[in-house]
Amino acid sequence: MIPNDNIIALATPSGAGAIAVIRISGATAIDTAAAFFKSAYSKDLRKKKSHTISLGHIIEDNKILDEVLVSIFKGPNSYTGENVVEISCHGSPYIQQQVIQLFLRNGCRTADAGEFTLRAFLNGKMDLSQAEAVADLIASDNAASHQIAIQQMRGGFSNEIKSLRAELLNFASLIELELDFSEEDVEFADRTQFNELLSRIQKVLKSLIDSFAVGNVIKNGIPVAIVGEPNVGKSTLLNAFLNEERALVSDIAGTTRDTIEDEIAIGGIGFRFIDTAGIRETQDVVEGMGIKRTFEKIEQSQVILLLVDGSKILADSEKLKNITIDFEKIKNKNPLKPLLLLVNKADTLSDADKEVIAQHLKAVNYLSAKTGEGVEELKNSLLQFVNTGALRNNETIVTNSRHYNSLLKALEEIEKVQFGMEEDLSSDLMAIDVREALYHLGEITGQVTNDELLGNIFANFCIGK
Amino acid sequence: MIPNDNIIALATPSGAGAIAVIRISGATAIDTAAAFFKSAYSKDLRKKKSHTISLGHIIEDNKILDEVLVSIFKGPNSYTGENVVEISCHGSPYIQQQVIQLFLRNGCRTADAGEFTLRAFLNGKMDLSQAEAVADLIASDNAASHQIAIQQMRGGFSNEIKSLRAELLNFASLIELELDFSEEDVEFADRTQFNELLSRIQKVLKSLIDSFAVGNVIKNGIPVAIVGEPNVGKSTLLNAFLNEERALVSDIAGTTRDTIEDEIAIGGIGFRFIDTAGIRETQDVVEGMGIKRTFEKIEQSQVILLLVDGSKILADSEKLKNITIDFEKIKNKNPLKPLLLLVNKADTLSDADKEVIAQHLKAVNYLSAKTGEGVEELKNSLLQFVNTGALRNNETIVTNSRHYNSLLKALEEIEKVQFGMEEDLSSDLMAIDVREALYHLGEITGQVTNDELLGNIFANFCIGK
Repeated sequence: MIPNDNIIALATPSGAGAIAVIRISGATAIDTAAAFFKSAYSKDLRKKKSHTISLGHIIEDNKILDEVLVSIFKGPNSYTGENVVEISCHGSPYIQQQVIQLFLRNGCRTADAGEFTLRAFLNGKMDLSQAEAVADLIASDNAASHQIAIQQMRGGFSNEIKSLRAELLNFASLIELELDFSEEDVEFADRTQFNELLSRIQKVLKSLIDSFAVGNVIKNGIPVAIVGEPNVGKSTLLNAFLNEERALVSDIAGTTRDTIEDEIAIGGIGFRFIDTAGIRETQDVVEGMGIKRTFEKIEQSQVILLLVDGSKILADSEKLKNITIDFEKIKNKNPLKPLLLLVNKADTLSDADKEVIAQHLKAVNYLSAKTGEGVEELKNSLLQFVNTGALRNNETIVTNSRHYNSLLKALEEIEKVQFGMEEDLSSDLMAIDVREALYHLGEITGQVTNDELLGNIFANFCIGK
Repeated sequence: MIPNDNIIALATPSGAGAIAVIRISGATAIDTAAAFFKSAYSKDLRKKKSHTISLGHIIEDNKILDEVLVSIFKGPNSYTGENVVEISCHGSPYIQQQVIQLFLRNGCRTADAGEFTLRAFLNGKMDLSQAEAVADLIASDNAASHQIAIQQMRGGFSNEIKSLRAELLNFASLIELELDFSEEDVEFADRTQFNELLSRIQKVLKSLIDSFAVGNVIKNGIPVAIVGEPNVGKSTLLNAFLNEERALVSDIAGTTRDTIEDEIAIGGIGFRFIDTAGIRETQDVVEGMGIKRTFEKIEQSQVILLLVDGSKILADSEKLKNITIDFEKIKNKNPLKPLLLLVNKADTLSDADKEVIAQHLKAVNYLSAKTGEGVEELKNSLLQFVNTGALRNNETIVTNSRHYNSLLKALEEIEKVQFGMEEDLSSDLMAIDVREALYHLGEITGQVTNDELLGNIFANFCIGK
């Protein structure tokens, strides 16, 4: 049975703001709210139409808690599919708590993390992959992850999976029918059509599985190692990126980052910058460990930036030589990864300086976080290293590792069935594999589910969603 | 002219939550929102009734930014009195910014701090003291300040001020009429009635002015100095208070305070605890400065708690003697302030121990933050020291220093008029004082105002309110 007791939670971020929204969902949500709400125009909340807003007071024992706006949504036309009330109160944490406490004492209980969305799923308002996309959407912090989450929330690949699964289910019934009539040796399922369906499913699954490589990176940010000694300008470089982006997003509160271990969106794609120390050879044991860790971090990255201080490399020729050695060392250990040599503080260099540098270093990228020189070029380089083709073509991209795992398992079963068809194995063996494939496809959309799976998924949601 | 261009701001706290609400107000707010909103049921937002909610997508260039609920309020039946749109979107900061940026590019500008409420005032939806109460309400963090803010927001004393001012204005016109006919020596204004009105106004103003002593303290928290050496259990004591209150407010995230320089609500009243060091005599210059600062902090407080560690005071008789000296020293310097001697960690003391202590110390309050012993009694003592009578009797309490100053000035002018009446001064002199009184009374409610005053008031609001 689908639970329908009244659950309540703060739906807006905690803290003080102009307003806060408290959400109640459940069979008697509207009656519960009506018992403590006095409309400014003395209209009974229970008599209001769905999707309307009433101004009034939340009152307990003749004491006004707050002047509020109450929105009502009558099930099934609500987010959860149940009756839903949203109370928009003044944004003082004290008031938020007073209102929530009032209803906790009177017929509501605190919603678990993601419980509103869980109910939306249980009441058929969305499938499981759409529900998961809600959490991804809230977590999205750049254009790429946002676009993927929106696509998935609107049905994305789950519609395709559902339709393929329905076709497969149809064949499964026919094959099981054959088993019932096995002594008569009839074939209800057309083998050619079945083969054709298996190929289609295999193709779709493979393409979705392949998309995970891009999807996973986009969801988690593309790891970029910045190799550089202290004070070569790592933070300044990231702030330069940030400022360019901020010019577009002028309202975000000014934050200057102290650490570079952070994610920055560039051209709509999230890049996760990883700070590493220099890699100078040393006899010192402790320092040697630091260098080992640097190389480990470089290995985890997809792109490597070697950043040096342009204002210092001309001071002695040793410096210039060392940079070349460092560059080659990184390149040799990571031959396939893009590696850029960035000479920062280029505004301090004369043309003559640059000529000297050119004699010693190849493929130098000049950069000045101060003047902005080279920042745009660097951004373009970074974007070129990312395979965003699928994103631009609006292809479906899988970002969720749970979906990825189910897709892999489903593909394995489909290929077993295909093998069985080729080898002309008996229908009862194939029927088992088909059922397994149906199971794993159903896991993605939530047509097959269990409490543990749902518990794991919704525990990662925020309270109030 | 009252501005009516479209202003936009995030109305909910910044950060990630399940949902966020973006508010637009202005003459063309609904048309502006409609241009980028596609209803799930293809109904035009402009044709929807006021106080209704529509589900749909925010779309720019065929790209879906988010699935949202849009609430519309048609002026004058809205918070600001203008057309208002509230967009409830998914609570990702990225999405919030994308939606706000979209409208900033298309006919909206960022709202200034408090600008929605400023417009509500300018459009006659509330008077100035009610507008100020909105900010107080959002800032309220305990029952007392919340109750006062709600009362003020609902009209509170401003209705009384407005009605007295209207009566005074009536007399002012009559007196000014007398001036016009001064050669004929007529009296339009009934002097007995006028005297009676002046007395009434004087009485109301005096009572409101008196209430500020309580109101100011309630708004800012009652300062309590805790005198005590490190590790006597100051933080533990405050955590004990906090836990008792938290039992009532079970949903607030668990925070253990590291510092005691903080405000805690006890019985609905805010207490501001001030950490001070011990006050032991010393020859050391630096330490001597610390003691001087301790006494300064004690002077700023309304209540003093002398906290000692019960598990240590029996170790040597010197300790017990010193406590008495400390107690007397504080008492002598602050004869009128409540001073409590608190022996903490009382759970470590046997009855015999307590007898020994009783021989040396008078009026000891035993306390154990660990077992909760004495915590309830201490709370009651603290509440007794606060004059909350006015609060309990639901009397009007002035908490705003701007109102307080205007009340003082108005009273001064009223008393000048009264003096003029007694001394039978000429009407033209009195007329000036009456006008001044009218001016200061009007300042409170905003019937008299200017840009600078409004600027100062609304600059203290949060953005989005």
